[in-house]
Amino acid sequence: MADGSEVALRDLAEYLADDMAACNRAIVERMDSPVALIPQLAAHLVAAGGKRLRPLLTLASARLCGYKPDATHQRHVALAACVEFIHTATLLHDDVVDESTLRRGLASANAIFGNKASVLVGDFLFARSFQLMTDDGSLKVMGILSSASATIAEGEVLQMSTQNDLSTSIEKYLEVIHGKTAALFAAACRVGAVVADQPLKAEEALDSYGTNLGMAFQLVDDALDYAADQATLGKTIGDDFREGKITLPVLTAYTAGSEEDRAFWRRVIEESEQKPGDLEHALELIARTNAIGITLDHATRYAEAASQALDMFPPSRLKQLLQDTASYTVSRLR
Amino acid sequence: MADGSEVALRDLAEYLADDMAACNRAIVERMDSPVALIPQLAAHLVAAGGKRLRPLLTLASARLCGYKPDATHQRHVALAACVEFIHTATLLHDDVVDESTLRRGLASANAIFGNKASVLVGDFLFARSFQLMTDDGSLKVMGILSSASATIAEGEVLQMSTQNDLSTSIEKYLEVIHGKTAALFAAACRVGAVVADQPLKAEEALDSYGTNLGMAFQLVDDALDYAADQATLGKTIGDDFREGKITLPVLTAYTAGSEEDRAFWRRVIEESEQKPGDLEHALELIARTNAIGITLDHATRYAEAASQALDMFPPSRLKQLLQDTASYTVSRLR
Repeated sequence: MADGSEVALRDLAEYLADDMAACNRAIVERMDSPVALIPQLAAHLVAAGGKRLRPLLTLASARLCGYKPDATHQRHVALAACVEFIHTATLLHDDVVDESTLRRGLASANAIFGNKASVLVGDFLFARSFQLMTDDGSLKVMGILSSASATIAEGEVLQMSTQNDLSTSIEKYLEVIHGKTAALFAAACRVGAVVADQPLKAEEALDSYGTNLGMAFQLVDDALDYAADQATLGKTIGDDFREGKITLPVLTAYTAGSEEDRAFWRRVIEESEQKPGDLEHALELIARTNAIGITLDHATRYAEAASQALDMFPPSRLKQLLQDTASYTVSRLR
Repeated sequence: MADGSEVALRDLAEYLADDMAACNRAIVERMDSPVALIPQLAAHLVAAGGKRLRPLLTLASARLCGYKPDATHQRHVALAACVEFIHTATLLHDDVVDESTLRRGLASANAIFGNKASVLVGDFLFARSFQLMTDDGSLKVMGILSSASATIAEGEVLQMSTQNDLSTSIEKYLEVIHGKTAALFAAACRVGAVVADQPLKAEEALDSYGTNLGMAFQLVDDALDYAADQATLGKTIGDDFREGKITLPVLTAYTAGSEEDRAFWRRVIEESEQKPGDLEHALELIARTNAIGITLDHATRYAEAASQALDMFPPSRLKQLLQDTASYTVSRLR
């Protein structure tokens, strides 16, 4: 997995190693509960790892804005943990909704613990995230994160409504990925500016960085589902295809396809009638219409906008790392 | 359904008719979303009705504490709506977890809209409840309601862990119903005292009223599953039995039963091996061991404690109505 994106993220995590260690401790501590199944399932999630990209964004944004925690009060760390809890709750529920059995190459929580436990522990983590916000005590932070949580749920419902529907417009698809992914990236960055008491302009710059990074990230993720190698990326290629999920590669190949191609897409996506060999044919149509390239063009524009959103900040190692993260998000597939 | 409990609740709702009307408006307004499926599913939930017991408790507690809203700012109404959102979110997720198809005698949301929509709209309502708290702006209220939300999830997970397990102690069962039901009743009442700026003593009294009322309410609900008439109560009798849910009627009949009876309970509850006629036999064993009577004895003690918790408040029509609600909760089965 040592593609460009991973290297940029690793550099960022290394630069913020102390903050990340504190954040990981906070995550483990606050996942605890006297109800044994909760820490059990939580331990599975922690072991499964993940890049912790969203809490990293909160930590980096706070530091970029010059936030100086005192020894007893590390607001950026608690809020980074809070952001990860919101993300983990949505992952748990997503896997139930999508009936996924694999997450980052390992069995997903619902596959091991069952759908019921995943729904309920997701609820617990979501509630716990609000306790963390309450402990932080800033109404502004609460407003940002509670709005983001509502937007995520709206994005997920919208995605469900567009499932199997090839008449979905690109605008609606972009609205879906804004809701399900970019909104939390934006909020994660924005609260960094808030804890550092920065003016609205800095908040908005980081919000824009997060939004655009999130859009790029999800576009690349959607491209990977038709391009990734399962063994190296820990992602089952063709998941989106099997679920009839409407993503830009599919919309592009469908729109640019011949009448026969469009009939194929209607059968496999709209009517969910899939036979052996269909995924291979879909990959062929996607290659023929340059759908991955077009998806990455979109992603590149968002990544560039993310980079530019940081223009107002003076040059620094951290700014560079955040900009690298944006450009490498796309380069992992170029 | 015009049993004593319903009459007491109807009287309370009539006494607070203006507040309840404002609360119902707030619920409909704040369930809105540009994502069409959300208001669609919300409309189903609103149409399905329900007693709105929890928001009623917030409104009544605030008024009992002398809260006077001004024309533009009705904190008790917004928080009552918030409490109903938390409750509705947990109902949506419960029905998914329990695979229920009936709720209050009507098809449940998951039966009509599917499990996916129920999980995601539940998440939306949960996030929206936190937006309502943030709008209210009291950290104290947020602390109370976010803790209650975490406790509910813990109670639900604990309930899942005890499912099919006849060695569950009565203490553990009481812990489950405290989490899944009483914690939100307590929080709903407590925030009423907080918006009215009452001293800690009043907060604690209302918290105790809510806790004890919630315990009584859930004990009676668990008794009804082995005693109710489906046509009049809109509840499928034997639901808990079929799910292997561990409730006090079952624990009582199991503990007091003969060796043969215990073998029966182990087969139907622990091994989930149920045949036609088993529910009837279970009802017979429950009758023979007076398990409903014993469950109601527990409920009666909680209802009395709820009534006594209000001792510190001077006599008033509202206090009487709240005490009637407590005693009638149990009398509906006596």
